[in-house]
Amino acid sequence: MQHDFDRLIPRHETNAVAVEGYEGYLFGADSASLTLDRPREDIINMWVADMQFAAPPAALDAMADRLKHSIFGYTMNFDDQLYDVFSRWCDRRYGWIFPREQMVLSLGVIPALFGLVGYVCGPDDKVLTLSPSYGYFKHATTKSGRTFVTSPLINDNGRYEVNFADFEVKASDPAVKVFFLCHPHNPTGRLWSEVELRRMGEICFAHGVKIVSDEIHCDLLRTGLNHTPLAKLFPDSRDIITCMAVSKTFNLAGMMIATIIIPDPDLRAVWKDLHSPLVNPISLAAAIGSYRGGERWLEDLRVYLDGNFALATNFVRQYLPKARLDVPEATYLAWMNVGAYLPEPMNLTRFFLERAGVILEGGEMFVDNGEGHVRLNLACPRAVLQEALERMRSAILATG
Amino acid sequence: MQHDFDRLIPRHETNAVAVEGYEGYLFGADSASLTLDRPREDIINMWVADMQFAAPPAALDAMADRLKHSIFGYTMNFDDQLYDVFSRWCDRRYGWIFPREQMVLSLGVIPALFGLVGYVCGPDDKVLTLSPSYGYFKHATTKSGRTFVTSPLINDNGRYEVNFADFEVKASDPAVKVFFLCHPHNPTGRLWSEVELRRMGEICFAHGVKIVSDEIHCDLLRTGLNHTPLAKLFPDSRDIITCMAVSKTFNLAGMMIATIIIPDPDLRAVWKDLHSPLVNPISLAAAIGSYRGGERWLEDLRVYLDGNFALATNFVRQYLPKARLDVPEATYLAWMNVGAYLPEPMNLTRFFLERAGVILEGGEMFVDNGEGHVRLNLACPRAVLQEALERMRSAILATG
Repeated sequence: MQHDFDRLIPRHETNAVAVEGYEGYLFGADSASLTLDRPREDIINMWVADMQFAAPPAALDAMADRLKHSIFGYTMNFDDQLYDVFSRWCDRRYGWIFPREQMVLSLGVIPALFGLVGYVCGPDDKVLTLSPSYGYFKHATTKSGRTFVTSPLINDNGRYEVNFADFEVKASDPAVKVFFLCHPHNPTGRLWSEVELRRMGEICFAHGVKIVSDEIHCDLLRTGLNHTPLAKLFPDSRDIITCMAVSKTFNLAGMMIATIIIPDPDLRAVWKDLHSPLVNPISLAAAIGSYRGGERWLEDLRVYLDGNFALATNFVRQYLPKARLDVPEATYLAWMNVGAYLPEPMNLTRFFLERAGVILEGGEMFVDNGEGHVRLNLACPRAVLQEALERMRSAILATG
Repeated sequence: MQHDFDRLIPRHETNAVAVEGYEGYLFGADSASLTLDRPREDIINMWVADMQFAAPPAALDAMADRLKHSIFGYTMNFDDQLYDVFSRWCDRRYGWIFPREQMVLSLGVIPALFGLVGYVCGPDDKVLTLSPSYGYFKHATTKSGRTFVTSPLINDNGRYEVNFADFEVKASDPAVKVFFLCHPHNPTGRLWSEVELRRMGEICFAHGVKIVSDEIHCDLLRTGLNHTPLAKLFPDSRDIITCMAVSKTFNLAGMMIATIIIPDPDLRAVWKDLHSPLVNPISLAAAIGSYRGGERWLEDLRVYLDGNFALATNFVRQYLPKARLDVPEATYLAWMNVGAYLPEPMNLTRFFLERAGVILEGGEMFVDNGEGHVRLNLACPRAVLQEALERMRSAILATG
């Protein structure tokens, strides 16, 4: 392996949300009552979805090159550089192509979700998603006064499946105008199959529901697996908005740049009227550089993440046999069932922070249907993961 | 002078709005009918408000330093580094201080304006400003369905004054909830006096109108002049929101970072609930570095801009005696009256682009009260300015 994912890079004093932002995000006003069992600098953060790894050299080099130009005025994505490398990436890796004019930029997938809810939904409309659900799917809906509806996934002995009967009932509500699909799915790590994708798509389109397909984790699959964009299966549909980004793939979430593919010209016109097209020139350079030269790094990363998942699943099988952790098809997020050890009602986020000094996200952070589970971010050096697992085990066993 | 503002830095192929974005912004659908009299690469851009100068070494060094860290995950302004250097800057340069908790970040002043309209105004409320007005003051109001009201400035032989009788009538409309103050004023370059500021403030507060004071040009004053923040004059008011940024001061508009000071804890709570706190880590570093070490560069810049204004006003006096161009107190924007040569109705933006190959903004871009005027961005190498003025003169005289 060419890249050193074992290297520990301290993120203190960089204003990283991962290190400094957990109290506000995870506990809000309750953070005042936290009682930590060790100094703050000993806490291991495995919550927010960015990685403890350096960005790929292809990104760093492109950023350094852009820095040399020395002028950083108002910037938009006028030329075809990003489209050329990103569309080649999509063609090569997913067998999916889309025309240049369908691609717009956003300052991340989250801002795109907030915007799209406003552009598509009237004030009394609803947005549907599968649960457990990424929390910002809900925020993007409810902060502007719309209603958020979930169709809970069925947990079939650790494997999550869509409850299609329920999904169709929810999608057929005339007030539901948008389905937020998370593909691959956060937090469960499901990579939806073509059969599942087609069925969700057909149900939505039969009921006039547009699909915003958040595919931000689409490059972080276990080795040997491949991603199929939803839009590839419905090449004639104008009602799929695909969201991809370098944020997760190349660990550039802070650079705030995402590519949104909108086939419907009318919706694109609304987007262009209301959504700011400005982008940070260094972020644009980072995205272009990453898609152009970051693939080798990504393949090394996938191997490393596979190794981390093997370590974690073996550890759980050996030392926490009543817990359940399956290797997810995608994401660097482990969705672990600890309910047999730590029965409800218990705030698992607080438990592991206070008793193990490990910051993770308990199931309560994922809207609904997350009971008994924790989401653990495994994109960290292996030694850190090992230490975190040891601490979690000790904390769990101390309750027994 | 230590810094070389004469250096010509081509911005082609950097996706700069200044170079690539004028057709869309200035002409929209009409751009198809543009007929240029020279190749595109010969066009001089003097429109959008960024500078043709390299960012200060203090910014570039800080950005390069941050780049070395190599992780760019989700970032917010948790620590006090930016506050410490920016509040010292405000204290030293304006004699103004504010507490840490009042400062929040935004991805620029424009996103802050869009946000604040939504946080303060009901759907039927109105926003007031002075005209001519920066176009985005209007967009920030009307894109969300609110009504935009202007109080036209009085042009007293080239000097713009507030029409206080009219201003009070407009401010006393119960539907007016916000006054967008532009201080110093874009496009006229007026640096409002303490007397004027106090009077505007008293009128607004007497009628329950909050003031959003866009002070983004506050560091770009002619040498010898000093800026007084509106909030400094009303230390007990909770109804002034002050917007400042490194965008204009240090030519970092593309980095998308602004500091917003909100004294009202209730409004701040709404802001924190609805406004994304995420910031680009390289932008944060650039802002900290600029306020910490960029002052010498800024003082050199001001001297250079004074020289450009001297050149332009002398040129106009000598070669275009029926035009009027006064040195503005602030901004790098020249607001020039060419009405005597080019009578209405005439689209001055189109005229100078097609006949002189100079991109500037005609008065029609500034909502109302801009008839007969053009706004010319003088933040460019002097040789470029000289060439632009020559071309404009030729184009004007060819009409005679």
